[in-house]
Amino acid sequence: MTHPAIALIQQRFSGNRFDESHDMEDDLIRQLVDLATRAPSAYNLQNWRYIAVRATPSKRRLCELAYGQTKVSAAAVTFIVCGLPPDPQALGRRLQPFVDTGHMPASMAASWQDDVRKKYADPGAARDEAIRSASLGAATLIHAASALGLASSPMTGFDEAGVRRAFKLADEELPVMLVPVGRAAPGNWPQKPRRPLSEVLEIA
Amino acid sequence: MTHPAIALIQQRFSGNRFDESHDMEDDLIRQLVDLATRAPSAYNLQNWRYIAVRATPSKRRLCELAYGQTKVSAAAVTFIVCGLPPDPQALGRRLQPFVDTGHMPASMAASWQDDVRKKYADPGAARDEAIRSASLGAATLIHAASALGLASSPMTGFDEAGVRRAFKLADEELPVMLVPVGRAAPGNWPQKPRRPLSEVLEIA
Repeated sequence: MTHPAIALIQQRFSGNRFDESHDMEDDLIRQLVDLATRAPSAYNLQNWRYIAVRATPSKRRLCELAYGQTKVSAAAVTFIVCGLPPDPQALGRRLQPFVDTGHMPASMAASWQDDVRKKYADPGAARDEAIRSASLGAATLIHAASALGLASSPMTGFDEAGVRRAFKLADEELPVMLVPVGRAAPGNWPQKPRRPLSEVLEIA
Repeated sequence: MTHPAIALIQQRFSGNRFDESHDMEDDLIRQLVDLATRAPSAYNLQNWRYIAVRATPSKRRLCELAYGQTKVSAAAVTFIVCGLPPDPQALGRRLQPFVDTGHMPASMAASWQDDVRKKYADPGAARDEAIRSASLGAATLIHAASALGLASSPMTGFDEAGVRRAFKLADEELPVMLVPVGRAAPGNWPQKPRRPLSEVLEIA
């Protein structure tokens, strides 16, 4: 039997039209982000942060910073998905509960911290990992939204510096994507056509 | 009623142990990648490519290039997920079917091509988008694998130059992640602990 999650992936579309009368309660926002944080990240770094922009004036400000793309304010919530550079100190805290339950030896957690210290000393590598983790998180948010019957629409077209200022991001936080999430309104495009598999898959 | 996809996201774990007797047929590889390509990408660029490394000698080579991490060769298939810099010419071809079905005006497709030409003239912006798209694709592959009852394990620890050479990547292709996929063997860790929601979510 085909798992129902398959059809969700097959039918997902990026929404441009959202039901403006739809408000999203704290509990649903929390459920969405709880699911998004189940995404994998290198070393379990969890180097991400989600800002759920819900208040009308905040959405209006964010919409301006996204060059007036109305879905930002029409959707119940637009998430700013931020990635962060890997932080070996923080990783220690994030792995500690797994050490405490006896899953991971303390020596392994320490060696992962060492690896992170070396691997991301280069700011370019750290930036790449911030984008990778935030994108894995954003994709998981998007699939979680589908499972909750909601439409979503990842966006990379926005004024990065303006978003940093308006939403008081820390210096090291990189806004990687905006993701409006809400109830779909009529008139959305279906999923856009995909390239033939032969163009994108090689079996080696 | 809770959609069954929710539990898949909640229970997903990154596998380290795979059933080495599990072979994956072409059809299942094709199904997995077909689902992965349903991921969103900026402008529907679909700037990704998947190499399914299945043959034993190829997996052994890739395992060496991943510093001997045995999951690369133990899993039935390890995918090399590549991102590409956005290409306005290619975008025209990718949007054309959507124009042909009357969903998108030809003028809009042309204007998206112009946007892409301007936005990604900077090589840094192009690289960021390659990582973003490949990561959205990899996450979708991972969730699709769960839905098909398979374990997966995204990895960023590998010799990039070596992978480029060994698997004959084009110069502009960036290997963003390796994703072993296969049947889980006993002894895997459960999902690692997540940070408290209060650390990663702000409602604005």
